[in-house]
Amino acid sequence: MIIVLKRGATKEQINHILKKIESLGLRHMVSKGVERTIIGVIGEEDILRVQPLEVYPGVEKVMPVLAPYKLVSREFKQEDSVIDIKGIKIGGKKIVVIAGPCAVEEKELLISIAKKVKAAGATILRGGAFKPRTSPYSFQGLGKEGLEYLKAAKEETGLAILTEVMDTRDVELVAEYADIIQIGARNMQNFNLLKEVGKCQKPVLLKRGLAATLTELFMSAEYILSSGNEEVILCERGIRTFEDATRNTVDISAIGLVEELSHLPIIVDPSHATGRRSLIAPISKAAVAAGADGLLIEVHTHPEEALSDGAQSLLPKDFERLMKELGRIAEAVGRSI
Amino acid sequence: MIIVLKRGATKEQINHILKKIESLGLRHMVSKGVERTIIGVIGEEDILRVQPLEVYPGVEKVMPVLAPYKLVSREFKQEDSVIDIKGIKIGGKKIVVIAGPCAVEEKELLISIAKKVKAAGATILRGGAFKPRTSPYSFQGLGKEGLEYLKAAKEETGLAILTEVMDTRDVELVAEYADIIQIGARNMQNFNLLKEVGKCQKPVLLKRGLAATLTELFMSAEYILSSGNEEVILCERGIRTFEDATRNTVDISAIGLVEELSHLPIIVDPSHATGRRSLIAPISKAAVAAGADGLLIEVHTHPEEALSDGAQSLLPKDFERLMKELGRIAEAVGRSI
Amino acid sequence: MIIVLKRGATKEQINHILKKIESLGLRHMVSKGVERTIIGVIGEEDILRVQPLEVYPGVEKVMPVLAPYKLVSREFKQEDSVIDIKGIKIGGKKIVVIAGPCAVEEKELLISIAKKVKAAGATILRGGAFKPRTSPYSFQGLGKEGLEYLKAAKEETGLAILTEVMDTRDVELVAEYADIIQIGARNMQNFNLLKEVGKCQKPVLLKRGLAATLTELFMSAEYILSSGNEEVILCERGIRTFEDATRNTVDISAIGLVEELSHLPIIVDPSHATGRRSLIAPISKAAVAAGADGLLIEVHTHPEEALSDGAQSLLPKDFERLMKELGRIAEAVGRSI
Amino acid sequence: MIIVLKRGATKEQINHILKKIESLGLRHMVSKGVERTIIGVIGEEDILRVQPLEVYPGVEKVMPVLAPYKLVSREFKQEDSVIDIKGIKIGGKKIVVIAGPCAVEEKELLISIAKKVKAAGATILRGGAFKPRTSPYSFQGLGKEGLEYLKAAKEETGLAILTEVMDTRDVELVAEYADIIQIGARNMQNFNLLKEVGKCQKPVLLKRGLAATLTELFMSAEYILSSGNEEVILCERGIRTFEDATRNTVDISAIGLVEELSHLPIIVDPSHATGRRSLIAPISKAAVAAGADGLLIEVHTHPEEALSDGAQSLLPKDFERLMKELGRIAEAVGRSI
Repeated sequence: MIIVLKRGATKEQINHILKKIESLGLRHMVSKGVERTIIGVIGEEDILRVQPLEVYPGVEKVMPVLAPYKLVSREFKQEDSVIDIKGIKIGGKKIVVIAGPCAVEEKELLISIAKKVKAAGATILRGGAFKPRTSPYSFQGLGKEGLEYLKAAKEETGLAILTEVMDTRDVELVAEYADIIQIGARNMQNFNLLKEVGKCQKPVLLKRGLAATLTELFMSAEYILSSGNEEVILCERGIRTFEDATRNTVDISAIGLVEELSHLPIIVDPSHATGRRSLIAPISKAAVAAGADGLLIEVHTHPEEALSDGAQSLLPKDFERLMKELGRIAEAVGRSI
Repeated sequence: MIIVLKRGATKEQINHILKKIESLGLRHMVSKGVERTIIGVIGEEDILRVQPLEVYPGVEKVMPVLAPYKLVSREFKQEDSVIDIKGIKIGGKKIVVIAGPCAVEEKELLISIAKKVKAAGATILRGGAFKPRTSPYSFQGLGKEGLEYLKAAKEETGLAILTEVMDTRDVELVAEYADIIQIGARNMQNFNLLKEVGKCQKPVLLKRGLAATLTELFMSAEYILSSGNEEVILCERGIRTFEDATRNTVDISAIGLVEELSHLPIIVDPSHATGRRSLIAPISKAAVAAGADGLLIEVHTHPEEALSDGAQSLLPKDFERLMKELGRIAEAVGRSI
Repeated sequence: MIIVLKRGATKEQINHILKKIESLGLRHMVSKGVERTIIGVIGEEDILRVQPLEVYPGVEKVMPVLAPYKLVSREFKQEDSVIDIKGIKIGGKKIVVIAGPCAVEEKELLISIAKKVKAAGATILRGGAFKPRTSPYSFQGLGKEGLEYLKAAKEETGLAILTEVMDTRDVELVAEYADIIQIGARNMQNFNLLKEVGKCQKPVLLKRGLAATLTELFMSAEYILSSGNEEVILCERGIRTFEDATRNTVDISAIGLVEELSHLPIIVDPSHATGRRSLIAPISKAAVAAGADGLLIEVHTHPEEALSDGAQSLLPKDFERLMKELGRIAEAVGRSI
Repeated sequence: MIIVLKRGATKEQINHILKKIESLGLRHMVSKGVERTIIGVIGEEDILRVQPLEVYPGVEKVMPVLAPYKLVSREFKQEDSVIDIKGIKIGGKKIVVIAGPCAVEEKELLISIAKKVKAAGATILRGGAFKPRTSPYSFQGLGKEGLEYLKAAKEETGLAILTEVMDTRDVELVAEYADIIQIGARNMQNFNLLKEVGKCQKPVLLKRGLAATLTELFMSAEYILSSGNEEVILCERGIRTFEDATRNTVDISAIGLVEELSHLPIIVDPSHATGRRSLIAPISKAAVAAGADGLLIEVHTHPEEALSDGAQSLLPKDFERLMKELGRIAEAVGRSI
């Protein structure tokens, strides 16, 4: 931690700060420059991080030296984390594709979509039983019934299941059905929910919030890991910017940054990130080329009739074609799909 | 709803869309322009809003004519909603000031702060017993114990109590202690929590999310109203932008817009909006001048020792001075504080 | 300047950096912490700022201690700069109101508007002869003819004139007519234009760019001051965010921050900042309450016929009423208007 | 153009608007819905676009049906525009790589870098002689001398030259030396500069502004095309968001959108977009996979000594390796590099 003092900070002010530092069991190093005096603090930075040093008289600003996250950092664990879901490995050489409808609607429809995405190469089925919707008047999901349909689709196809949980009270229920529990973008900082999924034994797919920095995404993952669950998959799904031609702006740099800064796998959701069907293919390709460990793609056989987000779903035949194209790119970067 | 067709949309495509519209019990009006054909849909717009019309062949874009919110709109209810908390009226001529520490820490400290903010003119005490913190290693709040301290402070001072709820499982408990239940920015789209506070009989202060548009804030309020609770107070607390000199950017225009578009009262939280003690006074003054119905200000007697957000707390003496200055501005705009 | 090294930076890497620092005539101070080694550099920070230290092997990040601007900083000059335009003082106790149409259109119309804004209390007339328009098909301004009309309005009313320059080739011409030269938001980082107005003897009103941080606004002002012109007025006119209910988002905190960090006066343009006539009054009031030194308001007698931005212009009678309300708020904060 | 009226708009108000529409030679179609009356306007939308219809009494909002750009649109010209620079085709099957230092510094150094990027497969050399720098104290470029060095490098290597122009007064000079004239992000809305390069006979590379929407980028290109120069190459170089781990956020969706909406070629600048050397490779790969027509990459032999942006430059050997990797991805998407 570096404490930059105001020009003209007094001796008393400096001593007051130094005493505080000592009282916390840390060492300090004062450096008087031409324009500013600076105090370097040596020792566990976390001890200082929670102190409101900015309010001490004479302090201009406080600059942390280390990142605030630990367990999720590459520095803490150098080798890549690979999440193993009954043989499907997320974070390894093979890129994992999770596909399916936005919301679970009807049982037969779900099974039919599941079969199609499986045939095209997906290994995990997505589908929401609990749906976070901006409007109280929109379809809110089938709840437990939807989970039952997912179970049926799983039994029929052998696909693993990814589905979202929105409420601390539902974590146990959802964990019974899901192979991967999804925390949606709007719940990325629902800290109680993070702690709750941190206590369960299922892998968690954590979506980046609409206005979350990568550091905050890491801090939310840290909640899960520090609660005891190390199986976290990060998901880039677009952030909110002034550009209105797309629903959100995919932060494609996040892929490279996550790889640099964390050991956790990262996947990309081109459907929610853009909200535009025509962009799913180019964004999926970009994600694979940039090093993503997986993709989360909406596929629907009847987008015109979808109860949620039909406009961003691919038709099965388009999905099939895309999977082939992605295969070539995966190969070009030394991976497979 | 206006449906703009692609250049060269075929007769079949147009008929397909018209049939859909008719099947929903709506009427249509086709207008062939020089460059585009447009379909106007007459009838309940909400019926169409949930249909994924963008995926119909031949459709270029769909433009809703009406706002998606109803119960919260000025159009639905023309007169201002005034929330009455045992005689403290939010949304009336008198501007309400809610003050206190960010987090509830110690009982005596809380009571001492409560007395000071009361003396300066605040009528409601704020203080978090459940704290949403970005880091799992930060102080997470005292929980039920904190609620007990708030109760003690209320008994001692007569101030009403505002405190946050973060978990659907805690709504009942928090509602026992709070006079106003706060939904924090990070939970603005925690839809299950919104429904839960919508079912209880306590006024709700709903903070705008860090990346929420005003329309989304209204939709979240609509969740609460449509669940049966009409006592909602909106709170502007800054949005996230590229500017990094302040923690967030206060959207001061939100005050005027809320007044135009909704009947609900709006208050401003200058402490969280800026994260900088020196800006609390100018932002508070601006908010009152712009027509805000209230302010939510952090005050702490020992910011150096605060367990949460000390850097954005005012000292009681500064708060006292500010209250006087605000009184003059309130008067200048025909209100009191 | 603080240089944070990567974990495991080698002795050779450290020595390589230290030599570089010494070769620039600066001193260094190495501090080995538990997790990182840090190098503090003592001496003129500007010498180091232009060195690409981040690319030196072993460097994790470089953190400057000082702000990059000098001449515009409060630290450089403690007392407020007051710009005197023939007796109209910007930056003093009296709040200055600059009003008029967005674009100069017809001579008689301009004079008629000028008379009305003067009667209501404005002291400076605004009006664009050169108009930066997003579309090449929009009205681009009358050019020199427009400047002549402004001159006529000035002769008729005695109001000082503010008008924009967009091209280095026009600076001399515009300076002949204008009492204050405006640099528009889109030209805030047109560095050659900044240098050119920096060489002329007229006060400059510098608008903040749509995506400019305050630091960048200061750096652009620094271009003008360092070119020899100290008479710079800063102007907050909204920044671009995801919120689409207003054209831009007024950063009301900028007023307090500019006062803290710089000696230059700051005014607010509520018309461009919001693009919504109904918000001009609340934002103007907020600006005055927050401490702005002036306002830039669009007024037009026939907004329906305006060739540019009619939707954000006030009618003279609304402007007159607003001026009265602003007078009361100015008084409440110890100023006049 | 669709005009949505306020609830309760009067007959007089409606007639007033209809008369205005008729007076412009357009036809109208009134549709009375359940909650709103809507006026559809038939005819040249551009005629209405410049009218401030929002200020007409009774109008709630105005919704344009068509995009405001014409000449740059895919609708105007269906086949891809391919810019031919002495045989180097931008916008065709072959992906074009433009590489070189950020700023032109020394003649021999430039020639040495030019040789290396050519050997690795680049066909165009980039290098700034006029440098837009945030700080007046940073290196501002060598000016005409720098242009001479570029000429020398061109003679030596046969590479075409891309260099930036910042001032209307320099367009003629720069056009003498450059094969492609660059308009930088900060000048994207320097409309006089756009008109000036629109009059010269050289291809123009137009960078997207830091806060520009795609529509605005198209409108700026429209300035150049409508001035007579059809050879425009668009460049995505990152937009400004709240994420601070990278300098800007690459909008990777822009590639697909430009292809959909315009006939102009689009290239990506990963160096400026991220400001982080480690991200140049993943972003370059993503861009090629997503369909970009080219890349603009900073390469420097001595980034430690670079006078501008050394931290985002690749070393020649890293550039060489990247070019090979990009070759494989280009092949996977049916192109070459």
